[in-house]
Amino acid sequence: MEKKISMAVIRRLPRYYRYLNDLLKNSVKRISSSELSERMGITASQIRQDLNCFGGFGQQGYGYNVEFLNSEIGKILGVDRRFNTIIVGAGNMGNALANYANFKKRGYDLIGIFDISPERVGKEINGIRIFHMDMLDAFLEKNRVDIAILTVPSGNISEVAEKVTALGVKGIWNFSPQDLKVSSDVVVENVHLSDGLAVLGYRLKELG
Amino acid sequence: MEKKISMAVIRRLPRYYRYLNDLLKNSVKRISSSELSERMGITASQIRQDLNCFGGFGQQGYGYNVEFLNSEIGKILGVDRRFNTIIVGAGNMGNALANYANFKKRGYDLIGIFDISPERVGKEINGIRIFHMDMLDAFLEKNRVDIAILTVPSGNISEVAEKVTALGVKGIWNFSPQDLKVSSDVVVENVHLSDGLAVLGYRLKELG
Repeated sequence: MEKKISMAVIRRLPRYYRYLNDLLKNSVKRISSSELSERMGITASQIRQDLNCFGGFGQQGYGYNVEFLNSEIGKILGVDRRFNTIIVGAGNMGNALANYANFKKRGYDLIGIFDISPERVGKEINGIRIFHMDMLDAFLEKNRVDIAILTVPSGNISEVAEKVTALGVKGIWNFSPQDLKVSSDVVVENVHLSDGLAVLGYRLKELG
Repeated sequence: MEKKISMAVIRRLPRYYRYLNDLLKNSVKRISSSELSERMGITASQIRQDLNCFGGFGQQGYGYNVEFLNSEIGKILGVDRRFNTIIVGAGNMGNALANYANFKKRGYDLIGIFDISPERVGKEINGIRIFHMDMLDAFLEKNRVDIAILTVPSGNISEVAEKVTALGVKGIWNFSPQDLKVSSDVVVENVHLSDGLAVLGYRLKELG
């Protein structure tokens, strides 16, 4: 897969992957773009366009081979890879994420949780002990960490991001409301939950 | 604003709105598509295309009037509206969302929280009491609720969604991993946190 796929398409792949996984579980062997469109609420032409990016897995009159398409998208997304992951910030969101069993299933191994609150440090979430932030440097020197999930307040986010990336973390999943800017050898996904809520509000308004 | 704007554009509007708000706070009066592109990490041509949907607010050689554009996007998104909101499921995610102060600022008034756990019922989150699910019917009959935020396990999600929509809730923000299908007079935004993580994994892999 040498061809460069646009980020807009990449961002839709996890969704295709979820639906294809469901189809596989239900022993569906093939599916047309129009059936997939119906299920996913994406237009059939968008689906054909997206899936053509990988070299046209669909066949006229046959549709897509679910298992093959699922496996190809899985390869592109790199779902067979494992990532060592830490969470910085053990508040409600950090707790919710630490307890999200799906992450492990999807290749994200939680190996450390960090916080500054004396009430949290020393406790465990999902079998993982919460360390004080003072231990972060030593931890990152000893352990290879691929991804840091940051659920710290906006005011601290830049400082924490600089700290973890200086110590070799290459991926940041940022839950603070403030978008993070990082150097080009680090990747960040900024989560903005309230964007989804704003879209919901818009759609409610349109509903009348 | 009679023209129909595609959902793909609508989904980018909250992001424009956030950036424009930041610019306003920093007293920036006007901005070119290329400057905005630089800040937001969206191509300038995409920005021009998106913003042209609303009738071309940009002027050649001047750029966009930040205040005007911000106000227009705000109107489209309906940011001046207020929505009565409840949370069903007072676990970690429900707690995190109930404590998210931005929601109130953005027009979402949390008026009730519901759960089935005896350990949670009767307690308060952010000043809002947690009621038992048995009270939900009576609550929805007495109070107009626009949006239900559902943070219940996948196994219960369809049942809870049917219950709240039968009693008049028109908007659902679904945090369970399972996409919800609802009737056409109800709108749902399904949140799939792990999709973002999958994209992060992909980008890490591409980084090499």
